[in-house]
Amino acid sequence: MIEIGQYLERKKVLIDRELAERLPQSGPTLVSDAMRHSLEAGGKRLRPILVLAAADTLGSEDSSIIEVACALEYVHTYSLIHDDLPAMDNSDLRRGKPSCHRVYGEALAILAGDALLTLAFELIANYGRQGGKGTKAVKIMAELAAAAGVTGMIGGQVLDLEAEGSDPTLEKVENIAKMKTGALLRAAILCGAIAADASSEQMRALNIYASKIGPAFQIIDDLLDYEGTTEELGKPAGADQTRLKATYPALLGPEEARRRAEILYNDALKALESLDCPAELLSGLAEKMIYRTR
Amino acid sequence: MIEIGQYLERKKVLIDRELAERLPQSGPTLVSDAMRHSLEAGGKRLRPILVLAAADTLGSEDSSIIEVACALEYVHTYSLIHDDLPAMDNSDLRRGKPSCHRVYGEALAILAGDALLTLAFELIANYGRQGGKGTKAVKIMAELAAAAGVTGMIGGQVLDLEAEGSDPTLEKVENIAKMKTGALLRAAILCGAIAADASSEQMRALNIYASKIGPAFQIIDDLLDYEGTTEELGKPAGADQTRLKATYPALLGPEEARRRAEILYNDALKALESLDCPAELLSGLAEKMIYRTR
Repeated sequence: MIEIGQYLERKKVLIDRELAERLPQSGPTLVSDAMRHSLEAGGKRLRPILVLAAADTLGSEDSSIIEVACALEYVHTYSLIHDDLPAMDNSDLRRGKPSCHRVYGEALAILAGDALLTLAFELIANYGRQGGKGTKAVKIMAELAAAAGVTGMIGGQVLDLEAEGSDPTLEKVENIAKMKTGALLRAAILCGAIAADASSEQMRALNIYASKIGPAFQIIDDLLDYEGTTEELGKPAGADQTRLKATYPALLGPEEARRRAEILYNDALKALESLDCPAELLSGLAEKMIYRTR
Repeated sequence: MIEIGQYLERKKVLIDRELAERLPQSGPTLVSDAMRHSLEAGGKRLRPILVLAAADTLGSEDSSIIEVACALEYVHTYSLIHDDLPAMDNSDLRRGKPSCHRVYGEALAILAGDALLTLAFELIANYGRQGGKGTKAVKIMAELAAAAGVTGMIGGQVLDLEAEGSDPTLEKVENIAKMKTGALLRAAILCGAIAADASSEQMRALNIYASKIGPAFQIIDDLLDYEGTTEELGKPAGADQTRLKATYPALLGPEEARRRAEILYNDALKALESLDCPAELLSGLAEKMIYRTR
């Protein structure tokens, strides 16, 4: 029986170290510093942990998967840096520290984000060059690019910006959550599964699991913003309300929003039942994602 | 004997069509429109043509290389969009048309650039999924990511921004040119060569060729900006001087700058002599790159 808290802690230490080690050792230090600033601001490392947990669940013992895990976090961090820019969400705080452009200026923040996205794909290439993993690397890259691109994260950010100030509908909110947050969370699971040579049945079960926990996570995020304080969140609380962002609790009320998150959580657990291997790691992770206070 | 003008024209028509076809068909149309705006503003399509020309020179007949060629142009176009942003070079004109952020606003321009970079890697993944080209795709991806990243294009842009207004030296100018323009031009040749299964000797020759034509191309670019008019250039002429950018003609005078470009051009031609196949395509291309008026 895996103790989920210990697992998360152990993996976070590993991931933090590996993320730092893979930052550029050459090129202008200013941009590496800006990349490091945003990476070291912390965060739960949820996406790389999902990569590792999916692979661990399927019994993989290939340590090179850490390249894929780091790539997912780099993509996530790049998206935070660009989302915080004055032209986008104009956010001064991120993970309790000044956002990248507040410290390094807009130009460097744009370039640091670009560099993290580029580095992510370089890591997938590194992964693929180890022991003939070319075919798997290419599949992982396709998943990651689709999740990060116009039909995923970038598309979600565009819809989010478009929706600002307009009349929010539940359909819009769900669509934005699915694209902006859900796509990369889902890709994390699928990339881990691909690296671990998942069978098509395992892939199907994990795909359902992944499609449920993403929106559930976003609902909880919205709820924490809705109810929380700046200190707890590490970013300006109530920022979504101030900017008239469409969120689940604003539309449904906090109780109904939480109920929906729990339904999604239960659906995710049910999907794991059809896996042919013990999945307490992924069920435990889902629980941590839903029943969290920050 | 290949007529180089005809080759360029034929390939440009092909590339223009394929670039348009690979733009996202789903996701928010606003971001696809912004991507299309900057792609359709034209340009010589030099990078994708170099990909195709390198592969053609080595006798490749694999048509899926067009994915790689388009990826190179997407990366180039993304870099133009981000470089033009107010926080960077703050340029209102690009290729004779209003720059992306002038038409779509800063947020969309940042996201359109991000999306083009992401799409580029998706195309490399597509290339790799066709007929077991995983290993080659992974090598191409590594080249492209290195050329686009902190030790290449992004690093060059950082150095360029840092150098602004400071005392320019020839060493700085050479380094910036090598990273900001040279790296991606070189990658175009090498990616084409990898796709065409170049031998290590062919790779060596093409690497030298590629390392020479990049800086030569940049010198001519600087010269055209130095001497040209806005109408000829499609971007504000003399912009580099106004912003105290370090350029070759500013440092060396136009005659010496041109002489250096010609030395690099001759070195590039010499490298082609050690190729074991006819290389008039690449020598013709180098000539066109150096003896151009826009």
